[in-house]
Amino acid sequence: MITVGIVGGTGYTGVELLRLLVAHPGVELRVITSRSEAGMPVSDLFPNLRGHTELAFSVPDIDTLGGCDVVFFATPNGIAMQMVPELLEKGCRVIDLAADFRIQDIPEWEKWYGMTHACPASVVDAVYGLPEVNRAEIEKAHLVANPGCYPTAAQLGYLPLIENGLADVSSLIADCKSGVSGAGRGASVGALLAECSESMKAYAVPGHRHLPEIRQGLERAASQPVGLTFVPHLAPMIRGIHATLYARVVDRSVDIQSLYEQRYANEPFVDVLPAGSHAETRSVKGSNICRIAVHRPQDGDIVVVLSVIDNLVKGAAGQAVQNMNIMFGLEESQGLESIALLP
Amino acid sequence: MITVGIVGGTGYTGVELLRLLVAHPGVELRVITSRSEAGMPVSDLFPNLRGHTELAFSVPDIDTLGGCDVVFFATPNGIAMQMVPELLEKGCRVIDLAADFRIQDIPEWEKWYGMTHACPASVVDAVYGLPEVNRAEIEKAHLVANPGCYPTAAQLGYLPLIENGLADVSSLIADCKSGVSGAGRGASVGALLAECSESMKAYAVPGHRHLPEIRQGLERAASQPVGLTFVPHLAPMIRGIHATLYARVVDRSVDIQSLYEQRYANEPFVDVLPAGSHAETRSVKGSNICRIAVHRPQDGDIVVVLSVIDNLVKGAAGQAVQNMNIMFGLEESQGLESIALLP
Amino acid sequence: MITVGIVGGTGYTGVELLRLLVAHPGVELRVITSRSEAGMPVSDLFPNLRGHTELAFSVPDIDTLGGCDVVFFATPNGIAMQMVPELLEKGCRVIDLAADFRIQDIPEWEKWYGMTHACPASVVDAVYGLPEVNRAEIEKAHLVANPGCYPTAAQLGYLPLIENGLADVSSLIADCKSGVSGAGRGASVGALLAECSESMKAYAVPGHRHLPEIRQGLERAASQPVGLTFVPHLAPMIRGIHATLYARVVDRSVDIQSLYEQRYANEPFVDVLPAGSHAETRSVKGSNICRIAVHRPQDGDIVVVLSVIDNLVKGAAGQAVQNMNIMFGLEESQGLESIALLP
Amino acid sequence: MITVGIVGGTGYTGVELLRLLVAHPGVELRVITSRSEAGMPVSDLFPNLRGHTELAFSVPDIDTLGGCDVVFFATPNGIAMQMVPELLEKGCRVIDLAADFRIQDIPEWEKWYGMTHACPASVVDAVYGLPEVNRAEIEKAHLVANPGCYPTAAQLGYLPLIENGLADVSSLIADCKSGVSGAGRGASVGALLAECSESMKAYAVPGHRHLPEIRQGLERAASQPVGLTFVPHLAPMIRGIHATLYARVVDRSVDIQSLYEQRYANEPFVDVLPAGSHAETRSVKGSNICRIAVHRPQDGDIVVVLSVIDNLVKGAAGQAVQNMNIMFGLEESQGLESIALLP
Repeated sequence: MITVGIVGGTGYTGVELLRLLVAHPGVELRVITSRSEAGMPVSDLFPNLRGHTELAFSVPDIDTLGGCDVVFFATPNGIAMQMVPELLEKGCRVIDLAADFRIQDIPEWEKWYGMTHACPASVVDAVYGLPEVNRAEIEKAHLVANPGCYPTAAQLGYLPLIENGLADVSSLIADCKSGVSGAGRGASVGALLAECSESMKAYAVPGHRHLPEIRQGLERAASQPVGLTFVPHLAPMIRGIHATLYARVVDRSVDIQSLYEQRYANEPFVDVLPAGSHAETRSVKGSNICRIAVHRPQDGDIVVVLSVIDNLVKGAAGQAVQNMNIMFGLEESQGLESIALLP
Repeated sequence: MITVGIVGGTGYTGVELLRLLVAHPGVELRVITSRSEAGMPVSDLFPNLRGHTELAFSVPDIDTLGGCDVVFFATPNGIAMQMVPELLEKGCRVIDLAADFRIQDIPEWEKWYGMTHACPASVVDAVYGLPEVNRAEIEKAHLVANPGCYPTAAQLGYLPLIENGLADVSSLIADCKSGVSGAGRGASVGALLAECSESMKAYAVPGHRHLPEIRQGLERAASQPVGLTFVPHLAPMIRGIHATLYARVVDRSVDIQSLYEQRYANEPFVDVLPAGSHAETRSVKGSNICRIAVHRPQDGDIVVVLSVIDNLVKGAAGQAVQNMNIMFGLEESQGLESIALLP
Repeated sequence: MITVGIVGGTGYTGVELLRLLVAHPGVELRVITSRSEAGMPVSDLFPNLRGHTELAFSVPDIDTLGGCDVVFFATPNGIAMQMVPELLEKGCRVIDLAADFRIQDIPEWEKWYGMTHACPASVVDAVYGLPEVNRAEIEKAHLVANPGCYPTAAQLGYLPLIENGLADVSSLIADCKSGVSGAGRGASVGALLAECSESMKAYAVPGHRHLPEIRQGLERAASQPVGLTFVPHLAPMIRGIHATLYARVVDRSVDIQSLYEQRYANEPFVDVLPAGSHAETRSVKGSNICRIAVHRPQDGDIVVVLSVIDNLVKGAAGQAVQNMNIMFGLEESQGLESIALLP
Repeated sequence: MITVGIVGGTGYTGVELLRLLVAHPGVELRVITSRSEAGMPVSDLFPNLRGHTELAFSVPDIDTLGGCDVVFFATPNGIAMQMVPELLEKGCRVIDLAADFRIQDIPEWEKWYGMTHACPASVVDAVYGLPEVNRAEIEKAHLVANPGCYPTAAQLGYLPLIENGLADVSSLIADCKSGVSGAGRGASVGALLAECSESMKAYAVPGHRHLPEIRQGLERAASQPVGLTFVPHLAPMIRGIHATLYARVVDRSVDIQSLYEQRYANEPFVDVLPAGSHAETRSVKGSNICRIAVHRPQDGDIVVVLSVIDNLVKGAAGQAVQNMNIMFGLEESQGLESIALLP
């Protein structure tokens, strides 16, 4: 049994990690920390967990955490970087679900996140936890930077095109729609049902923190600079990301459908839909799947990729568990087989 | 492995049965029938099932079905009664998720369902599949009438009071709210998002078919006639039933909270919340749990019971699988352990 | 032109008052106050008002407010009572949309609202602003206590029965469902879309502040004590209250439908639906109408009244404008004729 | 008073026309036709209209309709073209809310709509009813083709850029999100709440009928061919369209914000938001406004335009009334001043 600790489990990423890890047959969930809720049983905060775990939140303690095989950080940005070096020293492995270790370019990170990085040296060693790209490195990693939700949907959608040099990468457009759980469980007026139900809006059009993360991933795949316009939108639903990705293809003769099917043929969590399909976010609700449909409307040179995930699963907690499975040599899909809830 | 057939799997009860049975470790799902969709892979209709089953819909065939250990009917009312006697003769066991075998009083059934019953003799042998009441009979049953969604929530909420003679059963009031999936997957104007989102309404106030079913169950528990007012409401959500149940207690000195906790102490799928709680339907979304909270406001003599289920799980497909587990001597919770999806 | 001031206009009641008063042909909206947002144009906070008003929030000033013909308080409970006596002295008339003047029994008010009342003497002079009951007093009133949202729907639904002595008032049950805007525009976890969408729950079952208000109104109508169980529920929608009201009738021979139709025949804002109807909250969205349907299921002795309003209009701002119209001798429906938005 | 007839009023466009025209001070609504509902009072179908109109649906009669000053067609595509020539001959003016007269290129229309056009000659005389482009022609028009919902949002968002030659029109991308009311009031599985709530999906990516309509409008403004990728999405809400429009600017030095403000300075129903804003569909719910925000992220050469409308108002019935006002010399905003409902 792999012993697991979670730092900061009171948000939506936290409850989703709990849902997955409590039911994971290879895991012993040992500790979950929260300064604000220390002492409270997790099932008091999250009633869906009643009867499934006796665990209570505790104050974070470096020795307890360090004694675990792996620690997940489900904390706000800037917390993990304070504790990770010490945990790594204790021989513990770490999966950070926040953004502290995602961007290799430290000044770029500091610009977008508005703080000084506490452990730039660890960033160098961190592996970006997108298994469909970095599986081999993840196996050996001590520190995994779990990708952001938008970056997961967007990269998986763009990769086959870009890895094969088929897209004009100078002007990619990623129009993404997210459910409100992406805004977190913190009280805010903008995320009230009465504010964001029955409405759609774009936000952060001048610049969103996931832009440099997506760009970094695409540039690695392209081996050249990438021009990307990324516009996130808030959709009136709880879960789900729908990325609509546009790219000009440089060669219309390529069979894009086959290209995608082949790229992901052996991926347990990427499902390329049949030609002509439209991916729905509800088809992945609660599951770790990314479903992708590709189109080239009117046989033109613009490819439209539809890529959907559950932002809390493949876009956060599920992918983190997938990374854990890879790191510890478990079956990659262990604890992640549950079928999406539909309707 | 128990071999299983499903008749009529194109509705919401059908897809939910598929979700549960495909992942059930003790089941081999052999056939699923639909005249209208014969030949279509089930995952074409329900994209959440892609990668989880290769099954396709087929035309119902009595021999194929009769060769299964158990057949589930996820059909409209009035279908199962046409086929059940023949299947029983073949030694197959049957769980009907529709209403054909729920009401023992045939004239009453015919009045509410507006048709002549095709096999009244089978009704006598049918066991009403509420495990919290009839577990021993279900074990031996060849034909189980799976309870309706409202009746499940309402009976589980009322039973401890009524079984103990604590309620004035002459004037019970059950005010119930259901998500729209309860209306089924058939195209109808009233169930369009644009019609029933952002709105609440009661329906069928003059009389709903679940009224005689709830009353029958409560009268068995009370061993006397019961006066029940049942008002169902349509709530703007996909899943969930919230039953708010009112009863006058005949003895204020009884500790209602303890009574409920004791009644359900050994029930794997009924969770009595701590005193002072309010049950939320989202806490059971996708799970087979019924959560119950009990109140006696201002220490008066009106008890208010809050009983929530997922109408498609404990209110339909989940309870059907629970009944199957009992009938075949499996662990009662096998295949039903998944944690509710929250948020 | 009636000159109008609003104290505290940053909540949902405030924006709704603005929507109605900006378009009201007999009103000059002179001032709207908010300490926290002083200086900000109201249309910056509420983009629907862009192009309709140049007004900005200002710090409350007793002289400016006192110079208005009427001041609306759209503030949290306990604010109006601090300022009302001074405003009344200046000859200004006041309509309080909060609860400060709704309950005549001061100790009862203090118990439920958890504070000492600042001006009990003003409570005596206050008129409860339910026009369908108190129209004549409202005409002359200097201080109107605008009813709560639940109390409006519940009283209008019960009054015809109770005024005519037809209900057993010892055990009334009011099961009410409200949209989330009723919780206000303050940031709170419980009102987040990700928390309360796709879910139903009851709340405040042990006791809600609107209970004594409804009971007071019903007792006035009954001229005797009333036993009332009131259970509010949160429904996953923005606007709307659906009150499902249960009462035992003492005389089954009375034609309840006619009784309701006659009681409200001349009321501009109460619409009794034809026999057999089910009222939908969406049919009153954005309008000042209360729609009512009455049933006596299976010809029994339980009457079920379905009463729906828009909680922000007839349940708050619209009724306040209706009261203003009455107080100042305007056409009662002036500025309130807009048709509900459907779908 | 202008006498008005409506053909086909049982859909969402119909009820919205009724809501606006019933309250319009310059209009006498004389007849509304529906073969299927002939004889039924409109307020039986649309309860929000109770108390506002006594009108009932009637069988369409060419003489009655022809006696009106103007007839609105709120019918499926292909109906208006059967009746319009005869109505025009009778001296009646016509506003078609469907697509029969929107596309000047008849073969193109026949390809996208899959039928033979019944009166190509009338198409030549028809004026495309986008007042912000064609106001002068609309004044004189006898037949107005009311624009589609997506085309309204997309054209208003793109026009200032394109009219001024600032966009590279060879590769425009319009990513649009619509509420479900856009799918109409017909019963269909895909529009059920249980199917499309809590989900996002694109649809008709290979080609949607609004593509040629948008392209036609943009080509007129550009005076050259336009390359347009248009992807519509279904959003889980009732009303609203959010168009996210992408274009490469050919001259970065232009002040785009000022350009948009000047272009629409005198337009009563287009509101350009301050720089840095994000338009929300809820800010126009129930109103005839199009709100637009413009961005040029990271000072690059991609302009992002956010354009929101209520699909049933500015995208259908409201714009039709606006066109009627222009045609008959009324104040353009008469009957269209109502403020959006927020929250």
